[in-house]
Amino acid sequence: MDVREQSISLPEWTQIIDEYYGTDEPIVNVHAGGGVYDAIFVGGGAAGRFGSSYLRAMGGRALVIDAWPFLGGTCPHQACVPHHLFSESAALLERERRLAGQLWFRQEGEIKASILDLVEVFRKGRNTAHAFMNWQTKDQLNVEYVLNAPATVVDPYTVEVAGMTFRTRNVVLGIGARQRPLQMPGADLRGIYDFASLVEDLDYEPSRCVILGGSKVAVEYGTFFQAAGCQTTILTRSPLLRTRSLHHVDEDIRRYVVGNMRGSGIEIVEGASPMSIEGNGRVQKVIAKDANGRAREYECDFVFNGTGEMPNSELARKWLGVKVGASGAVLADTRMRTSVDNVYAVGDLIGAPMEMFKARKCGMTAARNIMGDPYEFDFSEYPDFLHTTYEMTWVGLSEDEARQAYPNVTVIQMPPKSVNPADLPLPCAEGTMLYAFLKPELSGLQKCVIDGDTRKVVGFHHVGYGAKDAFQYLDYLMRRPEGITIDEMGQMNELFLNPEHFIQLSRLRAGNERLADL
Amino acid sequence: MDVREQSISLPEWTQIIDEYYGTDEPIVNVHAGGGVYDAIFVGGGAAGRFGSSYLRAMGGRALVIDAWPFLGGTCPHQACVPHHLFSESAALLERERRLAGQLWFRQEGEIKASILDLVEVFRKGRNTAHAFMNWQTKDQLNVEYVLNAPATVVDPYTVEVAGMTFRTRNVVLGIGARQRPLQMPGADLRGIYDFASLVEDLDYEPSRCVILGGSKVAVEYGTFFQAAGCQTTILTRSPLLRTRSLHHVDEDIRRYVVGNMRGSGIEIVEGASPMSIEGNGRVQKVIAKDANGRAREYECDFVFNGTGEMPNSELARKWLGVKVGASGAVLADTRMRTSVDNVYAVGDLIGAPMEMFKARKCGMTAARNIMGDPYEFDFSEYPDFLHTTYEMTWVGLSEDEARQAYPNVTVIQMPPKSVNPADLPLPCAEGTMLYAFLKPELSGLQKCVIDGDTRKVVGFHHVGYGAKDAFQYLDYLMRRPEGITIDEMGQMNELFLNPEHFIQLSRLRAGNERLADL
Repeated sequence: MDVREQSISLPEWTQIIDEYYGTDEPIVNVHAGGGVYDAIFVGGGAAGRFGSSYLRAMGGRALVIDAWPFLGGTCPHQACVPHHLFSESAALLERERRLAGQLWFRQEGEIKASILDLVEVFRKGRNTAHAFMNWQTKDQLNVEYVLNAPATVVDPYTVEVAGMTFRTRNVVLGIGARQRPLQMPGADLRGIYDFASLVEDLDYEPSRCVILGGSKVAVEYGTFFQAAGCQTTILTRSPLLRTRSLHHVDEDIRRYVVGNMRGSGIEIVEGASPMSIEGNGRVQKVIAKDANGRAREYECDFVFNGTGEMPNSELARKWLGVKVGASGAVLADTRMRTSVDNVYAVGDLIGAPMEMFKARKCGMTAARNIMGDPYEFDFSEYPDFLHTTYEMTWVGLSEDEARQAYPNVTVIQMPPKSVNPADLPLPCAEGTMLYAFLKPELSGLQKCVIDGDTRKVVGFHHVGYGAKDAFQYLDYLMRRPEGITIDEMGQMNELFLNPEHFIQLSRLRAGNERLADL
Repeated sequence: MDVREQSISLPEWTQIIDEYYGTDEPIVNVHAGGGVYDAIFVGGGAAGRFGSSYLRAMGGRALVIDAWPFLGGTCPHQACVPHHLFSESAALLERERRLAGQLWFRQEGEIKASILDLVEVFRKGRNTAHAFMNWQTKDQLNVEYVLNAPATVVDPYTVEVAGMTFRTRNVVLGIGARQRPLQMPGADLRGIYDFASLVEDLDYEPSRCVILGGSKVAVEYGTFFQAAGCQTTILTRSPLLRTRSLHHVDEDIRRYVVGNMRGSGIEIVEGASPMSIEGNGRVQKVIAKDANGRAREYECDFVFNGTGEMPNSELARKWLGVKVGASGAVLADTRMRTSVDNVYAVGDLIGAPMEMFKARKCGMTAARNIMGDPYEFDFSEYPDFLHTTYEMTWVGLSEDEARQAYPNVTVIQMPPKSVNPADLPLPCAEGTMLYAFLKPELSGLQKCVIDGDTRKVVGFHHVGYGAKDAFQYLDYLMRRPEGITIDEMGQMNELFLNPEHFIQLSRLRAGNERLADL
């Protein structure tokens, strides 16, 4: 289908995507006249879409190719968007359960949610989000694309797709990552899912779930399954939320979050080593060694693989021979250049963190460099978050890390360390007012870590809701060469109820020449 | 009761406040030895509490006096805290109604909320928040206070309270504001409430409400009453949310919000002039002229006065003869100095905006000036917000204002102007994923207004959830001398799903030398 000259509305795009998904009919939006592109982006996920748009905005000519009939990649199709839908549902269901029988909330026994129903709502609706990406990229961003057809990269200057051959000055690889497969007996049984196959294939209502792994995805999906009413066990080697990949998690924050996960009924088994999955065609139980080496059985009708993702680097190697690191990620420098001239790599393909901001900024970075602007992107430090039934957000150093780095650390937090959270009905987040009055111990936790000598804030940490967005700007302020001091924080204009109380708490201490904890 | 030497836990404080409320027994936390204070803060609300704490932190000696047995003032007792509790409840109930019968949501007919129940939850729980303020102010902030006793200011250097006389170098007045009383026949009937009397006195379940006035409070409480199941009519002279006191409200945002209020069943009568309230001991109806001057009747069993607040300046005038402006507010300069030497005024007493950030920063400003630091506070521009069943947040110029101020304005917004929100299932806020998939037109609206010549953002606007906190920092960034450009925005690290899409949308346009709308 050639869509170049057509004006296609959002509902029409939705229908086109519905019809083309699963076929091998390409969707072509290529300008007439041929010629050489400045860059061909192989993979139209976040990195490819934002990269090609930026390159186009700078006056370059970009082509994006994706094997799916839509742009946007796994995020709106299988990953972050369903994840956010599930996490939002988890937070609502958790509130219903915790407040059951009070005010207008139902009795606990009347709350019946279905994982399958919600998966179907997502599956049915996702193409409308895809439609928007196709529409925006063509009509607002004026970027060329070929969709619903796999690319073959012949060399850094030649890409074939759907029987067409395109010439380019550069290739940008953004072909993503996928769930690491389970390597154990029984891994081929039915009833084993990951974040992607969950939304593609689920066709029954799980009632007893075992999660293998302690990744972000494991925590996030496990919380949702439990909140939906499916009894969930997480089998994890490391203490939950204390893994290398989640750096800077503050220990008070971790305990609060993991404690509340247990409080909502999730069984968390730390030090576990899964050995095998057993069943009769379908999963029936997981066998895992506990921390003492004893084998234990966990009955289930649903196993979720939360062991982490691996970059799709095989094709990149095969096509172009780009160098790949020990983790399987394509090696790219701060300008997103690979080991092969005029070949760039972006997004999940270059490894952790597999986050949206990194993908989009990788794309932008590649585009700027291709267009002659030597922009560098360092993502070794970044603000991070995850969902349980809370949003947990953090940036900078944990309290322990700060105490190792600075001789004079001040901490201001709410509730204060000396107070029992159950005695303190102050909502430490947006949307925790009902908790504050009915279950104060669930109303959130926040912490600000300060280098007392320079008075600069070196870490922000929050559990609750409504603060995540602020961390984007806290990150920016903290990373400025001059940083952000408690005194500057105290002079800002807080919007009550400010979900993180950082500004008001700073103001209660900023007057002191010698800072003290709060 | 002398609490100075006592170690009092939060639960003990709650009990003390319970026992002392309504008595004339003072609670005294005054250090031994007498002497002269640097400042006595008359009124222990946000302004007095933060001001005295700041002054103490700077090494000064402060005394706070309040007529209530707790610090914190009206906010946690009658105003912002119950308001946030009600608004959170409204958002939850609205979601239940809008999604009724889908997924795990009940049928519409099964949702039965009670305004009275929620008021009682608040009334029962508020003293625990008060307890925290008393505890923190004494044990963490080391500020002296006399509570549960009205002060008499003899002169700028002498204050009497509970039979004691205190000497001071300065007096800081922070005695707040109160609801403007209704001036019309029937204003003395039972069944007429305002934000304060609602939580103090409500003793029945309202079923039919008429709101007089179009203030922030009118919008916020009206939305709650409707969501709780009480059919609500708002009678307002000006178009809703288009009043002088709400400056910089963007017209697209206003229409979206008011449209959704109507969509949730609120009757909004603009151009209305209330004439009288009628009833037989209790309210039965409100008579108001419509925009054409015709009298109309609105039956009700509950009238809510949302006509705005007035500063409590009478005592300030009587005690000290401070000058008062036309609006009844005590006149204070940017250092919070009144017309009388060594007398400062802070918080709601000095007029609009009657917001928490202003009160707290006024207190801090007075403290710094008293301690010899000539700090100035200009609150003519500030980030603002209000609740309907959404959070609506804004800072800087509206699109119309920007077009008057700059020749070359670029707007990036989501959903884009050319798209029907019902066709776009992208959640334009945190916590609107279910809306995005089931009722896309309810998933929020956001707008960023840019001066295309300097590339600086001059206005941010958002309807939804989870973005409010970010506006504290957007306000700071925008007000820096160098401002914040779309290019800098596009280089930040956004936390997906960033409730306001400002960073990602900026990145889609930042590459352009000549900016274009999105």
